[in-house]
Amino acid sequence: MPETNLIAISATDAAAEIARGAVTAEDYVRACLERIAAVEPEVQAFISLDPDYALKQARELDEHRSSGRPIGPLHGIPVAIKDICDTKDFPTGYGSAIYADRRPRNDCTVVARLRAAGAVIIGKTVSTEFAYFFPGKTRNPHDTTRTPGGSSSGSAAAVAAGMVPLAIGSQTNGSVIRPAAFCGVFGAKPTHGAVSRAGVLPLSRTLDHVGPFARTLDDLALILDVIVGNDPADPDSRPFSAPAFRRTAAEKPPLPPVYAFVRTPMWDKADAATKSTFEQVAKELGAFEAELPPYYAEAWEAQRAIMAVEMAFNLGPLIAKGEVSQRLQDLVAEGRKVTAVQYMAALSDAKRYAAGLTEIFERADAILTPSARGVAPADLTITGDPVFCTLWSLTGMPALNLPGLTGESGLPLGLQLVGETGRDERLLRTARAALDTLGLDKKKRKRS
Amino acid sequence: MPETNLIAISATDAAAEIARGAVTAEDYVRACLERIAAVEPEVQAFISLDPDYALKQARELDEHRSSGRPIGPLHGIPVAIKDICDTKDFPTGYGSAIYADRRPRNDCTVVARLRAAGAVIIGKTVSTEFAYFFPGKTRNPHDTTRTPGGSSSGSAAAVAAGMVPLAIGSQTNGSVIRPAAFCGVFGAKPTHGAVSRAGVLPLSRTLDHVGPFARTLDDLALILDVIVGNDPADPDSRPFSAPAFRRTAAEKPPLPPVYAFVRTPMWDKADAATKSTFEQVAKELGAFEAELPPYYAEAWEAQRAIMAVEMAFNLGPLIAKGEVSQRLQDLVAEGRKVTAVQYMAALSDAKRYAAGLTEIFERADAILTPSARGVAPADLTITGDPVFCTLWSLTGMPALNLPGLTGESGLPLGLQLVGETGRDERLLRTARAALDTLGLDKKKRKRS
Repeated sequence: MPETNLIAISATDAAAEIARGAVTAEDYVRACLERIAAVEPEVQAFISLDPDYALKQARELDEHRSSGRPIGPLHGIPVAIKDICDTKDFPTGYGSAIYADRRPRNDCTVVARLRAAGAVIIGKTVSTEFAYFFPGKTRNPHDTTRTPGGSSSGSAAAVAAGMVPLAIGSQTNGSVIRPAAFCGVFGAKPTHGAVSRAGVLPLSRTLDHVGPFARTLDDLALILDVIVGNDPADPDSRPFSAPAFRRTAAEKPPLPPVYAFVRTPMWDKADAATKSTFEQVAKELGAFEAELPPYYAEAWEAQRAIMAVEMAFNLGPLIAKGEVSQRLQDLVAEGRKVTAVQYMAALSDAKRYAAGLTEIFERADAILTPSARGVAPADLTITGDPVFCTLWSLTGMPALNLPGLTGESGLPLGLQLVGETGRDERLLRTARAALDTLGLDKKKRKRS
Repeated sequence: MPETNLIAISATDAAAEIARGAVTAEDYVRACLERIAAVEPEVQAFISLDPDYALKQARELDEHRSSGRPIGPLHGIPVAIKDICDTKDFPTGYGSAIYADRRPRNDCTVVARLRAAGAVIIGKTVSTEFAYFFPGKTRNPHDTTRTPGGSSSGSAAAVAAGMVPLAIGSQTNGSVIRPAAFCGVFGAKPTHGAVSRAGVLPLSRTLDHVGPFARTLDDLALILDVIVGNDPADPDSRPFSAPAFRRTAAEKPPLPPVYAFVRTPMWDKADAATKSTFEQVAKELGAFEAELPPYYAEAWEAQRAIMAVEMAFNLGPLIAKGEVSQRLQDLVAEGRKVTAVQYMAALSDAKRYAAGLTEIFERADAILTPSARGVAPADLTITGDPVFCTLWSLTGMPALNLPGLTGESGLPLGLQLVGETGRDERLLRTARAALDTLGLDKKKRKRS
């Protein structure tokens, strides 16, 4: 296989080629580095990158394989890591100049799991400031005048631009699903606690999720099988059986999936093209409409209170050490004003919203809803609105962004599927069926 | 065995006699009811009692046994239940006139487990108002001008007065250990989450513990084997192996136990007689002195903030429906003023205190410390000071009150042993060794 084509193949195929010895990890990493060299000046997805070190890791993996020792499912596959996830070999700067030189001693759990599976940790990707709203330097690969979304800006852009097949991001409100939507890649926010947050900058224990980006559904399943798992170091991690994303995603659903189209109380914030596309998609999927009870309109305030409080608690001491954006300062000040009883009420409400949503899953396999209000805004000073992700972050339910729809100006428009808590694997199986029904699994369809 | 002696034997012996058919459950319950009839007018431990219903339960248990079906470890043993624990067959009034007629539909988990083990739920015992400080009608059986302690006043007094061999209480600050100390019985506050709080009035998820009272260490082990266990309905319950309190408590320790004498920053609150007794006890046990770092003095404030916030959240809506004591109103008002960031800091500090204490257990098997400032105060308008229990409730570590020491006026003086988190069974084994060393296992020793 000529090197120049390597970046076009999926992580799943590349891993298979490396495993059988048709391609070396070094060749594959070199191909990615060449692609990075070509497009990084425009996209600016990385905050730390060390090509020589990446090649060294790849050569060690090749040596390991040629010694005949067993290899992991990501052997030789480069993965890019959001700059709020601790890595022992790269600085971890939280997207803030204050911590640009911060060098953690240990890998976070998710990076340790990736390394144990044979991944090459290729570099650190741009995060917004402390994974909140103030943007970094990254631009949308589809149109460099547009935001890639945030806060996992660099991870989404690096995957979309073909620099790496896989990347890790995180979501407290909409920071995986929104950039995946704007950049036109697959993104997953697994069930709260399914992927360990240990060693990742904590913003909000209640709302923080770690999740991956990929260019194919198989690749998403490949990395989820590696990163999902119990970790006693994360207090919200729970014991569960070994994940089976690849196996489940490959199964044919026993019955055609049933979709619940949920506009959410934020529907009016979607732009006209998004609304009409989703009404059409809902029809094509045979979705039934599920309306949320009126009190769900308050869920966005509950999420705001929890996020403000927990970020004030976690980031307050960190941001006291230097200059930060006004927007983050305002959030911390807002969080400090919330009373403990108000905060407990918001936490209690979050459980009520989650419990109410389980009823939908008595009828439906997945909730269908937009990933964002529309396509990526043509503004590099913002990262877009997470409003269509908030409810699923608050309730901890698994969510996926599926690419393939096209919105205004021919840009990617994200389709979000939300699954039942803890049924992450089944959600991938449903997603494949949805892509199939919509004809999005092979080639992009034009919608506008 | 003549009926009149039945109340003098332990629950362990009574259960054995019932199991082999030498005594019927009806005889045993009748003996307890006779004792209750004799002493209840003075002690007033019960808020709900139904002798006919108790005898009916006993007769059904006797029928069950005589049918040859398997029986549980508490078959035919009467257990009294604190009035904040839901029972399907007795009102559960929270120690408040507002809820005197409240009739739950279901048993709380701990009562369901007791019933499944064959216990006779004999009645509901007096709790202070909402398990806080405003006392109920119960008097100390050792001196009816004195408080039995609180908030599990009736449960401790009923066991101390020989009305029942076993009772259930709860502790948010010092509400099991303190009344056990004042009434001269065994009391256990197991590790946080070890006994389910599901169906028990929630005051504070962080601080609430359910625990039993007994007259012998074997009886304490007997009931702990029944009530300790995982319950998904309690969010702080964790999966663990089946409890083995009786087996472990019966073992000889592999080495003589090592005790850490911890005066705590509250030492000056202990009265002179208590101080000198504990210095003597520490010497007899060969305890080493463990001094807590100065920042532990703030633990009592952290506990206060957490308790005030969580009780304001949980009880606020309940007390809006009627008259409650000024002291409870003041606490709720105080809790409502705490900010969420202050509350999170207190929760975070609690983890730090717990982590710091684990170091002591690298050397010691148990911490030795007073259960209370002294003997039961001669005042029925108060329930005494929980100050020697606060740190162990905040950190969730298992604690026992051991009776046998005698303080001022010949009244019981409680000895508290605190164990490592999750090592509840081993703490009972250590307690037996301590009683043995101090000569408290057979007869009371006079100290003053």
